[in-house]
Amino acid sequence: MINYPNKKKVDQKKEVINAANRGMDFEHAINISNSFYDEEGRAIITKRPTPIHIVKVDYTKMRIIDAYFEKQSTTDYNGVYRSRYIDFECKETKSTTSFTFRNIYLHQIKHLQKVLKHGGIAFFLIYFKSLDEIYLVDANIIISLFLSSEKHSISIKELREKGYLVSQGYNPRVNYLDVVDEVYFHEKNL
Amino acid sequence: MINYPNKKKVDQKKEVINAANRGMDFEHAINISNSFYDEEGRAIITKRPTPIHIVKVDYTKMRIIDAYFEKQSTTDYNGVYRSRYIDFECKETKSTTSFTFRNIYLHQIKHLQKVLKHGGIAFFLIYFKSLDEIYLVDANIIISLFLSSEKHSISIKELREKGYLVSQGYNPRVNYLDVVDEVYFHEKNL
Repeated sequence: MINYPNKKKVDQKKEVINAANRGMDFEHAINISNSFYDEEGRAIITKRPTPIHIVKVDYTKMRIIDAYFEKQSTTDYNGVYRSRYIDFECKETKSTTSFTFRNIYLHQIKHLQKVLKHGGIAFFLIYFKSLDEIYLVDANIIISLFLSSEKHSISIKELREKGYLVSQGYNPRVNYLDVVDEVYFHEKNL
Repeated sequence: MINYPNKKKVDQKKEVINAANRGMDFEHAINISNSFYDEEGRAIITKRPTPIHIVKVDYTKMRIIDAYFEKQSTTDYNGVYRSRYIDFECKETKSTTSFTFRNIYLHQIKHLQKVLKHGGIAFFLIYFKSLDEIYLVDANIIISLFLSSEKHSISIKELREKGYLVSQGYNPRVNYLDVVDEVYFHEKNL
C-alpha cells in the first residue's frame, strides 16, 4: 500500500463519512433482509422512497436540477406478511442506556395510531449500535410513552422487558419476522 | 382581461402542459379520495413517492442539484383497510374501446402476484378519460391477460363484465372502497 503523506487526513475524512452513514447501515441491513424475505417467498415488505420536493426540471435532458428532501409523513417500511398489513419504523442510537424520541415525529406517531386502528401490525425496530442489539417493540408502547408528557425516551431495561431481541445472522441479516411470528402470531420459531 | 398579442401561443403551451399532466389528474383524484378516507377514519392508503436517483447534492445548501426519475418497482398505492393489506395501481387511457398494457411493467405484475400470494388485496383502477368511467378490476384478471402471449389489452366490454364501475362524486372523489367492500368483503353499500 502506498503510504500517502496525507494518510491520516484521509482516514479522518473516512471516519466522518462512516459516522454520517451510520444510520444507513441499519437501514441497509433491513433492506437486504427484506430482499431475502422476498426471494424466500416469505413476505413483501418494501421501503418507501424518501419523498423529494422537486423545484426545477431540465426537460430537455429529463434531469432534476433543483430539489430538496422532504420529511417522510408516514413510516419507512410497509408491506404484507401472512395476510396482515405490516408497518414499521427503524431507528438507531449510539447510546447504551436508552433510546430517546428526538427522531420520532408526531405525524409518524399519528400514522402508527391509524395503522393500529385499522387492524395493521405496527412496531419499531431499534438498533443499539454500541451494544449491537436490535429490539422489536410494539408501536402501542412507544406511542403511549411518546404522548405522555413526562417521558421522552425508553430505557434499555424497559426495552428488554417490553420488547424482543431480534436475532442477527447472515441470511436474513436481521431476522425480525421470527419475532413477528412470536409476538403477533403466537408462534415460536425454533 | 388583457389581450396579449401572443395569447394564442400561450394557450398552445397550456394545452401541451395539460396533455403532459393528464395522468396526474386521475392520480390527484385518487390522492384526495385517500385523504378523505383517512380523515373519515375509513382506511390508511398512501401513495408511494416516485423513486428518484440522486446524482449530486450540494451539501452546503442541502439541495439536490442533479437527479433523475426512476421507474417505480412496485405499484403506486398501498395501505390497510379493514385489517387487510391493499395494493393497487392506477392507470388512465384516452381510448374508448380498450385499455392496452403498454404502461404496465413486468416487475409490477410480479409484485402484484406476490401480494396476492401473501394474502393481500390487489387490483387496478382504470380510468377511461373520454368516457369518464373508472373500473376496478382484480389483479388476477390483468395478470393472466398480461402473461398470455396473445392479448395485450383488455376491452371495455370485458372490463364491464369482469370489472366494477367505480362511482364518482364530491367526497370521496372516487369511491373505490365501496367497490372493495362489495368485491372483497361481499358487502353492498347502499
